[in-house]
Amino acid sequence: MEWTEWDSRTCSVARTAELVGDAWTVLVLRDLLNGVRRFDELAGHLGIARNVLTRRLAGLVDAGLVERVPYREPGRRERHEYRLTEAGLELRIVLNALRDWGDRHLAGEAGQPVRVEHAGCGAEVRTVLRCEAGHEITNDTRLRSVPGPGAKRGPAPEAVVTG
Amino acid sequence: MEWTEWDSRTCSVARTAELVGDAWTVLVLRDLLNGVRRFDELAGHLGIARNVLTRRLAGLVDAGLVERVPYREPGRRERHEYRLTEAGLELRIVLNALRDWGDRHLAGEAGQPVRVEHAGCGAEVRTVLRCEAGHEITNDTRLRSVPGPGAKRGPAPEAVVTG
Repeated sequence: MEWTEWDSRTCSVARTAELVGDAWTVLVLRDLLNGVRRFDELAGHLGIARNVLTRRLAGLVDAGLVERVPYREPGRRERHEYRLTEAGLELRIVLNALRDWGDRHLAGEAGQPVRVEHAGCGAEVRTVLRCEAGHEITNDTRLRSVPGPGAKRGPAPEAVVTG
Repeated sequence: MEWTEWDSRTCSVARTAELVGDAWTVLVLRDLLNGVRRFDELAGHLGIARNVLTRRLAGLVDAGLVERVPYREPGRRERHEYRLTEAGLELRIVLNALRDWGDRHLAGEAGQPVRVEHAGCGAEVRTVLRCEAGHEITNDTRLRSVPGPGAKRGPAPEAVVTG
């Protein structure tokens, strides 16, 4: 079965990109991962329009990546803060992969802006691609995509709109 | 220095998300990684409007992730195909991280749609987060973001538009 015969949308890359494939969403997740939890702090640090931030946070809550948790400061009305769920926290590896790539290709002369360390030992954190037999995958390693149980054929060629 | 004192844009996550933080761009990269190289094949498989695909490919070429290579079939006019550069190919780990997450959280009852294997040994490929001292990082592992040489302070609080 050729790659182009598979349904393009029945794919875990496509499904995840639909949830988080948006630059603002990535930055909101990044700040949540770095402990920024309150709406005004997120809006201020990101420089994002408040209505855009509201929409992005609502999308993340709907997708189960973020929880909205009430808090109240003495003498003030109840507000909410935003916390990553376990599923949201698992996206940490996606953001680290973006960061690693940017460190290598976009940091320029100034060098790496942020170093992420394992708090326990201080060593730098990196994303690694490897197979379950323990081989590390580099740019030169050939990979193969094969249909899993959830694979689906794409629309028949005559149903595809290309023009 | 608090995370929110750092400039939000001077960050390798932000810079990379600006290049590839768009669902269509992710799908174009996915298909290029799977060997789809011709405009009509990309358009047909992705079900993307041709003008949108043209813009996404032009952006990827400008960013140095994709090369436009001429080819000519006998008796037809010259056309171009699109190939990932080394830098583009290095994004494979980002797409695999998205896929891993989607396999765990979005595949549902049907199961994993696509299994990516190391062609050399047949074992499944996974993304791993680990520190350079060799510790594997899980959801429970505490990480720490510290300023690198390229870090930049953000705008002073009075310059931030929050309302």
